[in-house]
Amino acid sequence: MNDTTKNPGAALTLEQIQEIVTRAPYHQWLGLKVVAVHDDGIELKATWREEWVVNLERRFTHGGILAALVDLGADWAMVRKLGRGVPTIDMRVDYHAVALPGDLTIKGKIVRMGNQFSVSEASIFDAQGKLLASGRGTYLTAPPPPKA
Amino acid sequence: MNDTTKNPGAALTLEQIQEIVTRAPYHQWLGLKVVAVHDDGIELKATWREEWVVNLERRFTHGGILAALVDLGADWAMVRKLGRGVPTIDMRVDYHAVALPGDLTIKGKIVRMGNQFSVSEASIFDAQGKLLASGRGTYLTAPPPPKA
Amino acid sequence: MNDTTKNPGAALTLEQIQEIVTRAPYHQWLGLKVVAVHDDGIELKATWREEWVVNLERRFTHGGILAALVDLGADWAMVRKLGRGVPTIDMRVDYHAVALPGDLTIKGKIVRMGNQFSVSEASIFDAQGKLLASGRGTYLTAPPPPKA
Amino acid sequence: MNDTTKNPGAALTLEQIQEIVTRAPYHQWLGLKVVAVHDDGIELKATWREEWVVNLERRFTHGGILAALVDLGADWAMVRKLGRGVPTIDMRVDYHAVALPGDLTIKGKIVRMGNQFSVSEASIFDAQGKLLASGRGTYLTAPPPPKA
Repeated sequence: MNDTTKNPGAALTLEQIQEIVTRAPYHQWLGLKVVAVHDDGIELKATWREEWVVNLERRFTHGGILAALVDLGADWAMVRKLGRGVPTIDMRVDYHAVALPGDLTIKGKIVRMGNQFSVSEASIFDAQGKLLASGRGTYLTAPPPPKA
Repeated sequence: MNDTTKNPGAALTLEQIQEIVTRAPYHQWLGLKVVAVHDDGIELKATWREEWVVNLERRFTHGGILAALVDLGADWAMVRKLGRGVPTIDMRVDYHAVALPGDLTIKGKIVRMGNQFSVSEASIFDAQGKLLASGRGTYLTAPPPPKA
Repeated sequence: MNDTTKNPGAALTLEQIQEIVTRAPYHQWLGLKVVAVHDDGIELKATWREEWVVNLERRFTHGGILAALVDLGADWAMVRKLGRGVPTIDMRVDYHAVALPGDLTIKGKIVRMGNQFSVSEASIFDAQGKLLASGRGTYLTAPPPPKA
Repeated sequence: MNDTTKNPGAALTLEQIQEIVTRAPYHQWLGLKVVAVHDDGIELKATWREEWVVNLERRFTHGGILAALVDLGADWAMVRKLGRGVPTIDMRVDYHAVALPGDLTIKGKIVRMGNQFSVSEASIFDAQGKLLASGRGTYLTAPPPPKA
């Protein structure tokens, strides 16, 4: 459902959102690639790296990485729609299965867009499509104060 | 309230917990140092690095880093008491203020220890003692199944 | 998607689940009616009553009622599938809009079924189909210990 | 730590807050009594009633009641400080132990007061002081818009 051809209002295209995403050093470290955008959502990929590992023997990815990806997916679904940054107010993450080495897919989707603050959710999948983590957060979507 | 001299049961000393913490590549990347341990809690420090930055102009640290630190602080307060790993079931993070470049202090504290699952909380502070983020999570504290 | 005709394994029919729901005095007070059941979800209705009001002038329903309904919807989606009670471990509720006097619809849906604990979500709608609140929780789905 | 004698700014006294609390039909149904107020917190009592029961044999109180009390405790710690209502944006509740018939004590405490939104927490205890549930929420503390 990639609709980058239609881009009403402030909504950003896949290419625009990829450019903004890549600016952040943390996003570069996560190896984030925007895979698709649609009206209420976004899909990204994160590139596995050795520093994600928390358990040397079993090679699990740290839950903090998955938490960051849930936040990112939920957040960027809104950024793409609004065309501006939306700070995270709070977030919940549920861990469903251990993440083994490999790239991860992040699907973010808006739950409810509000004037002041809004709710968005995201799910993280491994390369086989297994659900590893999911969650939701509240984001500050009030328009920025006018500049003096 | 560093009581590493008293170490009843399975509780770990500061040195023991530092050794286990350091084994994980992700913890090394976060530059984690155990500062103090006490009966129901732990204090750690994380070492700032350029890759944490999300906003190039304003130099904010990414919320995903703070989320990882909240999870870590809450989790390791329990690991230190039980002497074994406790997987995160779910977690909530509240963001209170933007984190600027600089090392961060993490204070984790057990809320309620249960037989099957338990709740622990953590707060993140900057070098000036300003509260940046806080949260709580549910951790699986059931004893591991006996090996065959 | 009411599939009460198919009822594999322990899953309960609409009539069975209504009977169990109605046993609880708190459910009677909420005026809960099971509207539909399907493989991974349940739909219920709650009957408005004067005691729900928190704001006398504006007649809003208290958020605690909505929180109870989110918990109920998420919980009973699992009860209906497993055929036994599943205690709530923790829960998150997001409030989207104020609830005015009137019956409420609750849609619960399983996010991920696990062996030990599982995640389920629910959304609350007014009679016009407006989303008022939503949320998710972690539920203890481990099989009950064998009786002595 | 009842400091109703000092009442700087908009902060409300115990008697004032009791009067506002009692206005709401839902609060009357919960039998809420304000026990103490202090600078960053509030203590209330809720009066058990038969309609709280979810399990007829074991007489447990429904988790939705505990969720409402966590929300109330966290919310009214802020109301008492600000002297005006603060809508709940979202909330997390952790369940620690089953609640048997009996009055409940609610202790609410502000975690961090912000200009736009703020975080507050609450814990619920039975008559023996046992911790039954706890949690935290985000509340809208932005000043109300000026009236036309």
